[in-house]
Amino acid sequence: MVVDLNADLGEGAGHDEAILEYISSANIACGWHAGDADTMRQCVRWALARGVAIGAHPSYPDRQYFGRTEMTLPPDSVYTSVLYQIGALQAIARGEGTRLHHVKPHGALYNQAAHDPLLAEAIVAAVQAADPALRLVGLAGSELVQHARAAGLVALDEAFVDRRYRADGTLVPRSAAGALIEDEAEALAQALQLVNGSVTSIDEQHIAIHADTLCLHGDSPYAVTFARLIHSQLLRHGITVSAT
Amino acid sequence: MVVDLNADLGEGAGHDEAILEYISSANIACGWHAGDADTMRQCVRWALARGVAIGAHPSYPDRQYFGRTEMTLPPDSVYTSVLYQIGALQAIARGEGTRLHHVKPHGALYNQAAHDPLLAEAIVAAVQAADPALRLVGLAGSELVQHARAAGLVALDEAFVDRRYRADGTLVPRSAAGALIEDEAEALAQALQLVNGSVTSIDEQHIAIHADTLCLHGDSPYAVTFARLIHSQLLRHGITVSAT
Amino acid sequence: MVVDLNADLGEGAGHDEAILEYISSANIACGWHAGDADTMRQCVRWALARGVAIGAHPSYPDRQYFGRTEMTLPPDSVYTSVLYQIGALQAIARGEGTRLHHVKPHGALYNQAAHDPLLAEAIVAAVQAADPALRLVGLAGSELVQHARAAGLVALDEAFVDRRYRADGTLVPRSAAGALIEDEAEALAQALQLVNGSVTSIDEQHIAIHADTLCLHGDSPYAVTFARLIHSQLLRHGITVSAT
Amino acid sequence: MVVDLNADLGEGAGHDEAILEYISSANIACGWHAGDADTMRQCVRWALARGVAIGAHPSYPDRQYFGRTEMTLPPDSVYTSVLYQIGALQAIARGEGTRLHHVKPHGALYNQAAHDPLLAEAIVAAVQAADPALRLVGLAGSELVQHARAAGLVALDEAFVDRRYRADGTLVPRSAAGALIEDEAEALAQALQLVNGSVTSIDEQHIAIHADTLCLHGDSPYAVTFARLIHSQLLRHGITVSAT
Repeated sequence: MVVDLNADLGEGAGHDEAILEYISSANIACGWHAGDADTMRQCVRWALARGVAIGAHPSYPDRQYFGRTEMTLPPDSVYTSVLYQIGALQAIARGEGTRLHHVKPHGALYNQAAHDPLLAEAIVAAVQAADPALRLVGLAGSELVQHARAAGLVALDEAFVDRRYRADGTLVPRSAAGALIEDEAEALAQALQLVNGSVTSIDEQHIAIHADTLCLHGDSPYAVTFARLIHSQLLRHGITVSAT
Repeated sequence: MVVDLNADLGEGAGHDEAILEYISSANIACGWHAGDADTMRQCVRWALARGVAIGAHPSYPDRQYFGRTEMTLPPDSVYTSVLYQIGALQAIARGEGTRLHHVKPHGALYNQAAHDPLLAEAIVAAVQAADPALRLVGLAGSELVQHARAAGLVALDEAFVDRRYRADGTLVPRSAAGALIEDEAEALAQALQLVNGSVTSIDEQHIAIHADTLCLHGDSPYAVTFARLIHSQLLRHGITVSAT
Repeated sequence: MVVDLNADLGEGAGHDEAILEYISSANIACGWHAGDADTMRQCVRWALARGVAIGAHPSYPDRQYFGRTEMTLPPDSVYTSVLYQIGALQAIARGEGTRLHHVKPHGALYNQAAHDPLLAEAIVAAVQAADPALRLVGLAGSELVQHARAAGLVALDEAFVDRRYRADGTLVPRSAAGALIEDEAEALAQALQLVNGSVTSIDEQHIAIHADTLCLHGDSPYAVTFARLIHSQLLRHGITVSAT
Repeated sequence: MVVDLNADLGEGAGHDEAILEYISSANIACGWHAGDADTMRQCVRWALARGVAIGAHPSYPDRQYFGRTEMTLPPDSVYTSVLYQIGALQAIARGEGTRLHHVKPHGALYNQAAHDPLLAEAIVAAVQAADPALRLVGLAGSELVQHARAAGLVALDEAFVDRRYRADGTLVPRSAAGALIEDEAEALAQALQLVNGSVTSIDEQHIAIHADTLCLHGDSPYAVTFARLIHSQLLRHGITVSAT
């Protein structure tokens, strides 16, 4: 069995290099919600040195609120915005002698594209324009991954080890009680469950879910410790951690 | 005889489409001093429709002062900054089925790179990393074009039809009296002189200058009228206007 | 009879100084959707020289899309954002020996606050914190002006001479057919009607509307000509143009 | 004996609240190199709750490089930029029922203003326009504090406990060997020396220096531990820590 572990980099967390030891895919912020051209190159170099797959992590133009503000943009502007950010990282990767492996939208853009078909299409079109070989990472089962596949892209279903799910397979919103799994053992158990194709919803239902990649949130002070734990436990359970 | 006419686009002047009728190369702002992903795509489309060569116009990160503020950045940051901007426009061009022809730095970056070898090298390295087939446009005879050629890039010497020159071939600074040629007939005469390899300096010396491309400033309200005039007069004198 | 004529300034239209001849209130962009500290000071000086009332024109943080993108921000962030922008202009006005007269939110912030009570309250609280003597300009009859009055602020009902109204007193959205009045004579007729307390809706109903201030859009190339016309026609009809 | 301890806040260090326990003056970033309207309010509240004097920490417009890039701006633009940032924080402070105590320029602006009289004058003029009762903090003995005093402002001479000095009283540049004092005991010894009006230069000379306020750098992971140490040792030596 194989699973990908991904984390967001270049967002100022201060432990990018450490967390790279335990992941197989890095999503690098492209300057619109965090990061800049220098941090992008630094992250590319660090990932390259460890054989970690390099991806773009494009966002709405929202440094002030870290790309978490919901916006209503014309799909054409979403297309150009995403393409701009991918292109910027592609060039920086080329300068380091490598190329991008995937794209994962950030924050509000990710969330809105999970259920808004016009937004999903705009992102898919941008990824195709940038490079049709790029994988597109989205919420498992979402509009985004469905549109990506319909358009011929390889899409990766993403699941979260530290977020609780509802019985319909969507995430419990961050603002709701019990949204986050703060206990490590519980998060670890969910990781193993997800790799095996299911998850227990917040109302205790056993639901099916397909996960190509698991997201490790990188902004907590315990992110590195937790990444190390998840990584070692997956290996112990005979699961290979690798980008697909 | 052939000369290239270039102008800066996507900077909010309001007559980008009109001026494209009279130029052979467009330098498109990449969002750091002006423009955004939408204007970049719009300019690419307009240029493409008229067969005008498309170039990136990267800048220091300075929207507030339109990229005209002198900055002291480490060469590494200049390298990543320029590469970021070229990459963004490359991807947008790819989305329109075309590719970039050249790169021309903007404002203070252009001016400082004309005489600062470390800055020149950083820009040259970024252009090479992005695409070694890209032409690099710089002040005629400057450090920038010299470094570009030494590194194996095709560099284009740029001259100005509406700026006065000093006897050493450098421009009279904007802040000095007589820096700008405001009379159309005089600018036209200088254009014809430049195409023929010389210019009359502000102190009335006849000096040699090589110009591959002439810059038409686009931010005046008379820019379009003036572009039309220069273009038609060059044709009348048997000179071909074309990107090289 | 008295009416205020207002226009948005410092947004790069290029005719700020000219339009100031015909208005009684200037809404100055504060750098978040357009403008910067220099243009703010320039606009304050120009307005001051003509006795035009000076106001802040705060926006969402959205230079890329000129403050026209709808956002979902916590009310607390709207409060701090609006207060920040008012404070910046207050200080610049103080430096010129004058003070602010009013605040008018810009773009998507203005539109969303017209019907969102939490947003309206956040803006009202920011204006009160900045200076309780400031007038708050909002869409005539909107949540914003109602909340302002309930909180003890002087609120000004704003109406539009070049936008069509629906029978319920709201504006026909820009995206709908017939939203804009492009004929000058018609806009002028609507201005005179508005001053007299009514407007003819798009479905030809005669509805009551109270207007303390009329907005002259400043971003069209005909803005100055139109401002001159409205101004002179109002005077001819015995109406005084003055800030209240 | 009395000395002020100051630190920069709202710059994303993650321990603002903790460090406030040990300082008497807080310099709050105003959004141009770091921070935003929300962090500004949060810092004002935290400082207010602990009786720490609140100051503005204005910067060049340079989020990308944290305000550390040297720029060449017209003095008029420096004046409006500084005034804009002070005004923004003044309004936010007013909203919390308090007012500003001082202004301390950040990064490259601080360093360039230490020896550039035109820049110093521009900053002094902005502080006076904002509120002539504001103290202006600058490098001890610099052009900035001299111009401030000549103009009638109260200026505070700032010294650094963790930077080495040259025999002429200027700082050893960060890029030079031995610029930083990394040993805590040594930094503490320098703090006590500075309070007593002298410092030992890098070439072992004993020089006189007047320090009204000591800067505690806040961006190291050890900043809080170090602040606690300096604070307690100053008290132990009978020195009062208080804003002036």
